[in-house]
Amino acid sequence: MKIIQLGMVGGGRSSQIGDSHRVAANRDGLFKLSAGAFDKDPLASVEFGKKLGIDSSRAYADYRAMLQQELTRDDGIDAVSIMTPNGFHFEMASAFAANGIHVICEKPVTTTVEDAIKLAELVKDKDIVFGVMYGYTGYPMIKQAREMVRNGELGEIHTIKSEFAHGHAMHTVEQEKEGAAWRVDPKISGPSFVLADVGTHAYHIAGFVSGLKPIQVCAHLTSVVRTRPLEDNAFIWLKYPNGANGTVWASAVATGNQHGLNLRIYGSKASLQWHQERPNQLIYKQTSMSTKIYERGADDLYPAARIERVGVGHPEGYFESFSNVYRQFGQAIQAKLANQSLPVDYPGIDDGIQGVKFIESCLTSQVSGQAWVNL
Amino acid sequence: MKIIQLGMVGGGRSSQIGDSHRVAANRDGLFKLSAGAFDKDPLASVEFGKKLGIDSSRAYADYRAMLQQELTRDDGIDAVSIMTPNGFHFEMASAFAANGIHVICEKPVTTTVEDAIKLAELVKDKDIVFGVMYGYTGYPMIKQAREMVRNGELGEIHTIKSEFAHGHAMHTVEQEKEGAAWRVDPKISGPSFVLADVGTHAYHIAGFVSGLKPIQVCAHLTSVVRTRPLEDNAFIWLKYPNGANGTVWASAVATGNQHGLNLRIYGSKASLQWHQERPNQLIYKQTSMSTKIYERGADDLYPAARIERVGVGHPEGYFESFSNVYRQFGQAIQAKLANQSLPVDYPGIDDGIQGVKFIESCLTSQVSGQAWVNL
Amino acid sequence: MKIIQLGMVGGGRSSQIGDSHRVAANRDGLFKLSAGAFDKDPLASVEFGKKLGIDSSRAYADYRAMLQQELTRDDGIDAVSIMTPNGFHFEMASAFAANGIHVICEKPVTTTVEDAIKLAELVKDKDIVFGVMYGYTGYPMIKQAREMVRNGELGEIHTIKSEFAHGHAMHTVEQEKEGAAWRVDPKISGPSFVLADVGTHAYHIAGFVSGLKPIQVCAHLTSVVRTRPLEDNAFIWLKYPNGANGTVWASAVATGNQHGLNLRIYGSKASLQWHQERPNQLIYKQTSMSTKIYERGADDLYPAARIERVGVGHPEGYFESFSNVYRQFGQAIQAKLANQSLPVDYPGIDDGIQGVKFIESCLTSQVSGQAWVNL
Amino acid sequence: MKIIQLGMVGGGRSSQIGDSHRVAANRDGLFKLSAGAFDKDPLASVEFGKKLGIDSSRAYADYRAMLQQELTRDDGIDAVSIMTPNGFHFEMASAFAANGIHVICEKPVTTTVEDAIKLAELVKDKDIVFGVMYGYTGYPMIKQAREMVRNGELGEIHTIKSEFAHGHAMHTVEQEKEGAAWRVDPKISGPSFVLADVGTHAYHIAGFVSGLKPIQVCAHLTSVVRTRPLEDNAFIWLKYPNGANGTVWASAVATGNQHGLNLRIYGSKASLQWHQERPNQLIYKQTSMSTKIYERGADDLYPAARIERVGVGHPEGYFESFSNVYRQFGQAIQAKLANQSLPVDYPGIDDGIQGVKFIESCLTSQVSGQAWVNL
Repeated sequence: MKIIQLGMVGGGRSSQIGDSHRVAANRDGLFKLSAGAFDKDPLASVEFGKKLGIDSSRAYADYRAMLQQELTRDDGIDAVSIMTPNGFHFEMASAFAANGIHVICEKPVTTTVEDAIKLAELVKDKDIVFGVMYGYTGYPMIKQAREMVRNGELGEIHTIKSEFAHGHAMHTVEQEKEGAAWRVDPKISGPSFVLADVGTHAYHIAGFVSGLKPIQVCAHLTSVVRTRPLEDNAFIWLKYPNGANGTVWASAVATGNQHGLNLRIYGSKASLQWHQERPNQLIYKQTSMSTKIYERGADDLYPAARIERVGVGHPEGYFESFSNVYRQFGQAIQAKLANQSLPVDYPGIDDGIQGVKFIESCLTSQVSGQAWVNL
Repeated sequence: MKIIQLGMVGGGRSSQIGDSHRVAANRDGLFKLSAGAFDKDPLASVEFGKKLGIDSSRAYADYRAMLQQELTRDDGIDAVSIMTPNGFHFEMASAFAANGIHVICEKPVTTTVEDAIKLAELVKDKDIVFGVMYGYTGYPMIKQAREMVRNGELGEIHTIKSEFAHGHAMHTVEQEKEGAAWRVDPKISGPSFVLADVGTHAYHIAGFVSGLKPIQVCAHLTSVVRTRPLEDNAFIWLKYPNGANGTVWASAVATGNQHGLNLRIYGSKASLQWHQERPNQLIYKQTSMSTKIYERGADDLYPAARIERVGVGHPEGYFESFSNVYRQFGQAIQAKLANQSLPVDYPGIDDGIQGVKFIESCLTSQVSGQAWVNL
Repeated sequence: MKIIQLGMVGGGRSSQIGDSHRVAANRDGLFKLSAGAFDKDPLASVEFGKKLGIDSSRAYADYRAMLQQELTRDDGIDAVSIMTPNGFHFEMASAFAANGIHVICEKPVTTTVEDAIKLAELVKDKDIVFGVMYGYTGYPMIKQAREMVRNGELGEIHTIKSEFAHGHAMHTVEQEKEGAAWRVDPKISGPSFVLADVGTHAYHIAGFVSGLKPIQVCAHLTSVVRTRPLEDNAFIWLKYPNGANGTVWASAVATGNQHGLNLRIYGSKASLQWHQERPNQLIYKQTSMSTKIYERGADDLYPAARIERVGVGHPEGYFESFSNVYRQFGQAIQAKLANQSLPVDYPGIDDGIQGVKFIESCLTSQVSGQAWVNL
Repeated sequence: MKIIQLGMVGGGRSSQIGDSHRVAANRDGLFKLSAGAFDKDPLASVEFGKKLGIDSSRAYADYRAMLQQELTRDDGIDAVSIMTPNGFHFEMASAFAANGIHVICEKPVTTTVEDAIKLAELVKDKDIVFGVMYGYTGYPMIKQAREMVRNGELGEIHTIKSEFAHGHAMHTVEQEKEGAAWRVDPKISGPSFVLADVGTHAYHIAGFVSGLKPIQVCAHLTSVVRTRPLEDNAFIWLKYPNGANGTVWASAVATGNQHGLNLRIYGSKASLQWHQERPNQLIYKQTSMSTKIYERGADDLYPAARIERVGVGHPEGYFESFSNVYRQFGQAIQAKLANQSLPVDYPGIDDGIQGVKFIESCLTSQVSGQAWVNL
C-alpha cells in the first residue's frame, strides 16, 4: 500500500492538537507528513516545518499556496489534515476536496449546517475520503461498548447521559493565553464555543456507541464567564425515536474537572459507563447484580475491541485513541488510492453534518427559550 | 435530659425504612421506642411490636388509636415517627401535631404544597419539633461540604449537579414485590413517583450544601416503564437567583445503578464531588491542580464535620448518617421538652415545604411542555 | 430466647473499642448491657455507667467485684465482654469462665500460648461460649470470599497476602495520648505491640477466608520509632502445608495509611481482593479476563453473604461488621443458655489460640534472626 | 543535532517489547531505525524489516553480521537497541560497545554480576552511552515522586514496598506460546525467571524514587508452577543503611493481576503510592489528614515532572513512559556524538549492575535458606 503523503493546515507552534494529529499520523507508518501550512507567519511555518524534518520549500504560510504548489508536484500530498479555528474549516476543506485531496478535518466540520451539506455534496462528487476528527471513538473500550449494544447486552436503550465538562476556561483564558482567544470569538469560532469545542464530542460518542440518532433537542445555554459572547456551559435534553431520552452536558467552566468526557448508557437489561480519564475500563452493571469491569486487552472482549497496542494492564491513553482513528482514516485513503472498496469504519462527513446540526439546533432552542427543536 | 418516648406509624414487617428509623433512633440513647402502629393488621402489629420488645397494649393497628391511647398515659409518647406511604403523611402528621406530639416524618412531607403550608402553620401554632427525614444530610462529609461552601472555598457557586438515580424499578417491581406497589399508585403515593421517592433527596442535599434556593424549574418527566401512571425518570433544570444553574436527575430505571445519590458543586474557585456509595470521602478540585480527597474523621476537616463515630479509615455508612439526623431530632425534641432553646440544625418543616414545592413545580412544568415554572 | 445480660470490663471514657462493642451488642436486641467495670476509678465507672443507663450499684471499679456481686443476683450477668489491655485478658477471662459466665474477649486472647491453652481447657471444662473479637470477619463480603474459596472458585490457593498497616503510631502517640501508652508497654501489653494489636487481625482474616492454617513463620520485626521497646512494624512470611505461601504486613507506622486492612488471595484459577476501607466490594479476577466486583447485597452472592442490613448501594461499614460478629456470639450464648446445640459460626477460643501462636512464633523467629519457626 | 541511526537486535514478529522500543524510539524524532537483526531466520528478518521500511540489505539474521556491515557504512548505525533473551545481552552488548556503538539494552543487563561489571568497564573504556531499559521510570509521576522525596516531603524514609506481580504465567505459557518458553529456560534466560523479568523493575523503581540503595537482601523464592526450573514467585526483604526496610514482591503467578507494578514509600512525615495501571496519579498521604492526588500535567507538580505530552486529564500511558526514557537515551547519545557534556538523567550501566546484583543476591539468599546476603 502506498504511504500517504500528508499536508497539514494549522497545528504549529505550541498547538496541542497539532501534536496529537502528528503523533497519530506517524504511529502506524500509513502517513508521511510532507508539507504544511503550519502558521500564518511564513518564517514561523518554515521554522516549525524544519523541526519536523519538512523541506522548507513545502512549509507554507497559506493553505492556498500549499494546495497550488502541491498539486504541481509528482510527490504532492494525497491528503490534508485541517486543524485551524472552526471558522476556516469549510473554506479550506472545500478547496482541498474540490481538487481531489482527501481531507481529515477537526470538528466541528463547519459552522453552519448549510455549509456542511454543501461540503458533503462536494465530497460525494469528488469521491474523496473525508474524515472528521472525533478522536475519542478510537478507544478500544468505546468499540467494546458499541459491540455490546449491538449484541443486545443492554437490551433496549432508554437513557443516554453524555458529558464533556472540563474546567479549563473557568478563568478568562482568552485574555491570558495566546491560542485560546479564538474559541470565544464568533468571527473565528462561529456561533458556539463549548458546544462546538467539546459538546460535539459528547454528542458524537453517544451516537457512536448507542447507534441511536436523536430527533429533537432542547437546550439551556449560559455564559458563566459573563464577558463571553458565546456559551461556555450547555445543558441539553435529547429525544430519540424509540422513546429513549438523553442529556448532554458540555462545559468549559466545570471548575477543577480535568477532562470530563463521560458516557453512561442505560438499557432495559443493563447499563454501561465509560470515563475518558480511565479509558482502559468499561463498567457493565445489571440490576442488583455484581459489577463487571471490562478491561482493554482482556480475552473476553469482542474482536472489534481487540485493537490494543500493548497487553492488558499496560495502560493506553489519548494518543492511542487518536492513532486508532488515524489508522482508520489511513486505511480508507489507501483503499481509495488503490481503487479498492474497503469497508472502513471511520467518523466521516455524515458524522460531521450530524455534529453541526446538533450545535445549530441547540442554538435555535436556546434563542426560542428552551423550545424543542427538530434535529 | 429526658429520654424521648417514641411511637412509630408504619415501618413494620420487612420495611427497610422502618428498620433504618429504629436503628437511628436507638443509636444514641435519646429515644425509647415505646409504641407503634406498625401494621394495618392488628395481629401483625402486635407481633411485630413483640419482636421489638414493645408491650402488646401499645402495638396498635391504627394511628388514631395510638394517638388517643397514648395521650391518656402518663408515660405516653412524646414524639412519633411517620413512615407510611406519602399520601398519609399530611393527615397523620397533622393529627399528632395538633395534639402536641413532636413529629419526625418521612419525605415528602405531604403530597401538595397547600397541605405542607397548612401543616407548617400547625407546627408553628403548636410549637412542636417537626423533623423531615432527609437522612442523607447526616453524613459527616456532607457537613464538611457545607462548611467549605460557607467558608468560600468554592468561590461563588455557578453550577450544581445532583443525581439520585437508581435502577431498582427498571422491572415492574410494583407487580412483583409487596410494598413496592404503592409508590406508583397515585391514590396512595400522590402525584409523583420518582421525584417524591428520591428526587426530593437530590434536591434537598443540593440546597443543604450550597445554601442556595432555586427560583425556577424546568422538568422533563417520563415513564420508562410505560405501564406506570407516574414518572420514573426525571430530568430537571434549575435557575438560581445569583445566575447559577443546576440540574437534578432522578431515576428509578437507571439500570444497574445501585443507589446513585451524587452531588457535584462548581464554584468560581473550586468544585466538590460526593457520592453516597463512597460516603467517607469528599473530592475537592481546583483548576489544573492536584485533587484533594477529604476523609471522614481526618484532622483537617471543619469542626462541624467532626461528628464521626469511629476513627478515620473505619468506614461509616448509611446507618450512621441516619443516626446523626435522628440525634439532631432528638436533641431538638429534648430541648423543647425542657423548654430550652437549643440551636439545633435539622431538616425541618421548611425543608419539607421546599421539597414538595420542587415536586409540584416539576409536575407543572411537565404538563406545560417543559415551561420554566417559579418555585 | 432470653435476652443476654451483659457485663463489660474496660471500654469506658473515650475508649473507641468500648463504644464499638456496645453498639454491636445493642444492635440486634440479643444483649442488654446491665453491668460494667468500666474504669479503675470507682467514680468514673459509676459516672460512665450512668450515661449508659446502668444502675450505679452495677457500675464497678474492679472486675472481681463485678463477678462476685453479679453472681449473687438473680438477674446477674450471663456474659461478659472484656476489652482491657492485653495483659489482663487471661486473668479476667479465666475468672469469669471459671464461674460459668460466657466470655467475649478482645484479641489477642492472652499474651502467651501457654495461657491461651489453659484458658481453652477451662472453657471446655465449664462448657461456656467463648468469643474472640475478630470483628472484621463480620463483613458480608468476607463471608462471600470464604464461600467462593470453599466452592473452588479460586482453584487451589497458592499465595495469600494480608496486610493491616496503619500509620497512627508514626508519632510517639504513647507520649501524647492517654490510652495509647499501654500498647507499647510490655508490662501491660505483653511481648508485642503491632502484631498483637493489628497483625493478629490480618493473620486471622487470611485463615478465615482461605481455610488454610500455616505451618511455619519467618518474621522480620522492627521498631521504626526507635524509642519503643516493642515492634511497630512486622514483615512476616508464612508457609502452608499444601505448598502455598503467604505474607503478613502489620504496621503502626505506615504513615498516612488510615486503616490498612487488606486481603489478597491467589489460586490456580482466580484471585480475590478485599479492602476494609471499601468493605462493600469484593474484587474477583481471572487471568486476562474482565474483573468482577461483587457488591454487598447483590443477588449473585452466596446465601452466607446475604446478611446485609440494608439494600445494595446503601453503604454498610465497621459497625455492621462488629454487630454481625456480636449477633453470632449472642446466638451462640442464647443457644447455650437454652441448652440447644446451634451450629453457630463465630471466632472462638481456637482462633484465639491460633492468634497467640502466630504472635509468639513471630517473636521467636525474630530473636533467632529470621529463622523459620513451626506454628 | 544529528538524528541517531539505530539498529535493533531482536524484537521481530509478534514481540511486544520490540514494538514498544520502536514506538518509543520513533516518538521524538531523535532516532531513525535503519537496521536490524530482528530474527534468527534471515527471510523473517528481511520481511519484518520491510514492514518497517528498512532496506533489505540492512535486515540481518545475526547481530554479528549487522555489526560488521554497519561499521563499514558511512551512514551506519550510531546506536543499537538489544531486546533478545537475557542470556544474550552480555555478549551482544559487549560486541557493540567494543566497537563504539552506543547501546540501549533490555533488563537485566547480564545474567551475572561478573559480566555486568566487565561490561561496565568496557562502557567506560569506550566512553559510550549505555542505557538500560527500565522503561517505567519515564512516567512523569515517578519523576514527581522522586522530586518529592528529594525535597523532603516524606521526611526520612523508613519503609519501601514495591511490587511487580502479574498473573500471566499462572498457566504454563511456556508450553503454549512461542516466545514465552525462553524465560523459564535457564540456558537462555539465565538463573532467574521472575526476578529477572519483572522483579528487577520493582527493585529499580524503588531505588529511583527513594534514592536509597539497600545493603542486604533476604529472599524466599518458589515455583508455584512446579514444573518450572526457575522461580515464578519471589518475596524479598531489604535492609537499607539508614535502618529503613523494604520488601519486593515479584510474581508471574498472581492470578488475575494484569500488570501489577506498584510502589509505596513511607517516610517520617508522609507516604506516596503509585500504581502503574493508573499512572497519571500519585497519592500523597499524611497521618490523619486528607489525601492529595497529584495529577500528571497539573500546575502544582515539580518542574521535573512537567514532561507531559498532552494536557492534564488526557490520559498518557505505557508508550509515553517508554518514549520519555528513549528521549533521555537519545539526548545522551546526541550529546555524546556532538562531544557535549549534557547532564542527562537516564537508567545506565550502574543501574544495570545494581539490578543484576539484586537478582544474584536473592538467588544466593534462597539457596542459603533465607539468609541475609550483602548486596
